[in-house]
Amino acid sequence: MSLLYERVAESLRGQIRRGVLRAGERLPSLRRVGRQQQVSLATAVEAYVQLEREGLVEARPRSGYYVRSTAPPLSGAASRPAVRAPRPMRNPALLGVLDVLTRSDLLPLHAATPALDLLPAAGIAAAVARTMRRHRDEALRYAAPQGHPDLRLQIARRYAQCGVDVDPDEIVVTAGAMEAISLALRSVTRSGDVVLLETPTYYGLLQAVAALGLRVVEVPNRVGTGIDAAQLDALLARHDVRAAVLVPNFNNPVGSLTGEADKQAVVAACAARGVVLIEDDLYGELAYSGERPPPLRKFDRKGGVITCGSFSKTLAPGLRVGWALGPHWTGELLRAKCFSSVATASLPQLAIADYLAHHDVDRPLRRLRRELSANAQRWREAIARHWPAGTRVSEPAGGMALWLELADGVEGGALFEAALGQGIGTLPGHLFSNRDDYRHHLRLSCGLRWDAKMEQALRALGATADRLRRRK
Amino acid sequence: MSLLYERVAESLRGQIRRGVLRAGERLPSLRRVGRQQQVSLATAVEAYVQLEREGLVEARPRSGYYVRSTAPPLSGAASRPAVRAPRPMRNPALLGVLDVLTRSDLLPLHAATPALDLLPAAGIAAAVARTMRRHRDEALRYAAPQGHPDLRLQIARRYAQCGVDVDPDEIVVTAGAMEAISLALRSVTRSGDVVLLETPTYYGLLQAVAALGLRVVEVPNRVGTGIDAAQLDALLARHDVRAAVLVPNFNNPVGSLTGEADKQAVVAACAARGVVLIEDDLYGELAYSGERPPPLRKFDRKGGVITCGSFSKTLAPGLRVGWALGPHWTGELLRAKCFSSVATASLPQLAIADYLAHHDVDRPLRRLRRELSANAQRWREAIARHWPAGTRVSEPAGGMALWLELADGVEGGALFEAALGQGIGTLPGHLFSNRDDYRHHLRLSCGLRWDAKMEQALRALGATADRLRRRK
Repeated sequence: MSLLYERVAESLRGQIRRGVLRAGERLPSLRRVGRQQQVSLATAVEAYVQLEREGLVEARPRSGYYVRSTAPPLSGAASRPAVRAPRPMRNPALLGVLDVLTRSDLLPLHAATPALDLLPAAGIAAAVARTMRRHRDEALRYAAPQGHPDLRLQIARRYAQCGVDVDPDEIVVTAGAMEAISLALRSVTRSGDVVLLETPTYYGLLQAVAALGLRVVEVPNRVGTGIDAAQLDALLARHDVRAAVLVPNFNNPVGSLTGEADKQAVVAACAARGVVLIEDDLYGELAYSGERPPPLRKFDRKGGVITCGSFSKTLAPGLRVGWALGPHWTGELLRAKCFSSVATASLPQLAIADYLAHHDVDRPLRRLRRELSANAQRWREAIARHWPAGTRVSEPAGGMALWLELADGVEGGALFEAALGQGIGTLPGHLFSNRDDYRHHLRLSCGLRWDAKMEQALRALGATADRLRRRK
Repeated sequence: MSLLYERVAESLRGQIRRGVLRAGERLPSLRRVGRQQQVSLATAVEAYVQLEREGLVEARPRSGYYVRSTAPPLSGAASRPAVRAPRPMRNPALLGVLDVLTRSDLLPLHAATPALDLLPAAGIAAAVARTMRRHRDEALRYAAPQGHPDLRLQIARRYAQCGVDVDPDEIVVTAGAMEAISLALRSVTRSGDVVLLETPTYYGLLQAVAALGLRVVEVPNRVGTGIDAAQLDALLARHDVRAAVLVPNFNNPVGSLTGEADKQAVVAACAARGVVLIEDDLYGELAYSGERPPPLRKFDRKGGVITCGSFSKTLAPGLRVGWALGPHWTGELLRAKCFSSVATASLPQLAIADYLAHHDVDRPLRRLRRELSANAQRWREAIARHWPAGTRVSEPAGGMALWLELADGVEGGALFEAALGQGIGTLPGHLFSNRDDYRHHLRLSCGLRWDAKMEQALRALGATADRLRRRK
């Protein structure tokens, strides 16, 4: 029977590879395949389950099987090479987006950062003042490249609270999570190596990977359930992957949380195949449920996982304090840090350490999570009210990103451009993947404070989306 | 006659290449060469001047010509390839040095940073307080990736004061000069490219180049006169060089200042050959003469030079605020910044901008230059008093590095190790080149405050050098 189902699966793979069955298209019913290929219903089921396991098709409840829009490349598929260089950010559309990141005159719905009044700004300001009063010289002197011991202790304590044992001596303090990931990639990879990312994933990761001359293979992040360890393992089996950079806690832009079973299996798969696992745990503290999900690190028995994080989304974006940790890699990370930025600024490190030593950080975090969760709901409702029917919005489980699939083939790039003209920053979906799968997507941040102005902005965007839809 | 002097020169080149004449060895007198080779004294002079022009030999007043210890590689010299991969920092000795950079329990004669009491710490502290009072939200929010406009304006103004026209819009604010150089290298080069550095040069540049998988060719930095544009051009003619990273204003470790004629010729040579010129202008404000020498940028007619600098050596090391600028490269630098550290911390940027707006920075700079210059002299005198006869010390024209050639073949690495045991940090000479030319050198910083403890430390180091000398 295994030969029979494999024959059926291979036939369907070929149809997908040749474009006979296209992304988003419904597969023939199980009954029909059974008839066509003269196999039993059970064999047809087994074939479909196999294709689903490979990430080529997905089951939709009460509807049947569909070719995934984010299907991973088939080996030998000429039209979509499995491994290719990420697109460097050079075409005018992408440059326009970089420009947006730097503009201060826009309503920043493009920026995944919480409004300052959702953060404990007064407490941080007091910590800055206290630091300058008590430790002025230390605040103005070079810090050690590894970072200030007090801060490393506080980071380790924070992880201990979610059941993860971190040694302060394995931590390298960085200028935010992005520097942490950049250092990790530079420590682990060489130009030409293959890196596994999610699709969709944070555009900054794609750009960091592109800047280092790395190639990329992508594993789908599934709305709601995050990374599928079996899919990831199948990709690792097929490609010579050096490192994986994953955002299991609230993928940006999807907001999904990868479950603990998948996390554990992802760590095991990477360890078994010698793939260095780099996790971006930037949003780990921002679970709407209130329960901090564990990082991949929790399941790491070999010390090979590099965990990156930051206080930028929880305490003070502008202080640029983050970390990279992982006992096996501390030396390499430290070397990369030494010879690219020497050390993280001292005053911000000391101020954050002081804040954490003097405050129960769970209080402001509870408030922040509550507000972000409420915002996600408010944004979703406003979009339901004001945007064209058929617009689909993600239901994030944490973080502050909303991922929209636009109605009737409206292009994310077109809406992004039109929104700029309205003074509103958004991010077009195509930034979030090395493929062309998200041309009809858009990312919005729901980190700003909800008010009438925000509702008005979302209404204006919805009207623009509708205008673009009619023009088609 | 030109054929005659070239015949003589080629004979001596051959002797140097084959090791018959060794680094540091005195060449035969002009009279003797004339006799040996049966040429006139004038021809012998012309031959030696040619070898000097090529950087192979140096004239020492009232002593004759010597084979340079930093002689550039001869083409065809099998024993010393002209272009090779820089040594990655992996052998235990080098790792030990990295460890020193991170230790806080040493007297930091290894750290090229001024004592805090030579810097305007009180003024910076007041600027931090004022910034938090007046611009708290801005200080805690993400800055634009390019950096705060107020700070960029202040940087441009500072350059205007030394006659260099900089547009604030071409500046990218960075976490110190090291990040600036790292961004510049990442913007300009690809793995495998050849980069030209000085020898000796700051070990951090070699490490940054190594981390990017670049290869290196080295032009000697001449004690006293810095970079020789003709030597540099000869190397560019011979090798396919992508970029040059130079420290024309007070090379670290030598402390030499490259003259304006050489600067102008260096810029012209690089422009003519399509070599991107990256200058580390970190010490430009620290001329002992009091006259701020121009950066290479001053002679750049095409906008292709990237100038990197920092406030780390002049205002506040621990705030980690620097810059990279150069109109042709702003976009690339900004992209590299965006996708490796997003933005420089806001509070430090605003505090430095506030300080510069409210103070005449020339006052503390005058004091700093005066103190560093006096320190260099004090250090030199103490070394003359306490170290073995034959120890040679550089006479820096600015900055805070002293470059020592140890007496009687004492190894810099051995003295470095022994000094660690005495609680004193130094840096062994071999870190400052990709070659093996500086095994008998040591770098000391004279940035700390002079006092009895310092004299005692220098005496202890001298006694250790003497002990090592006797043991040989």
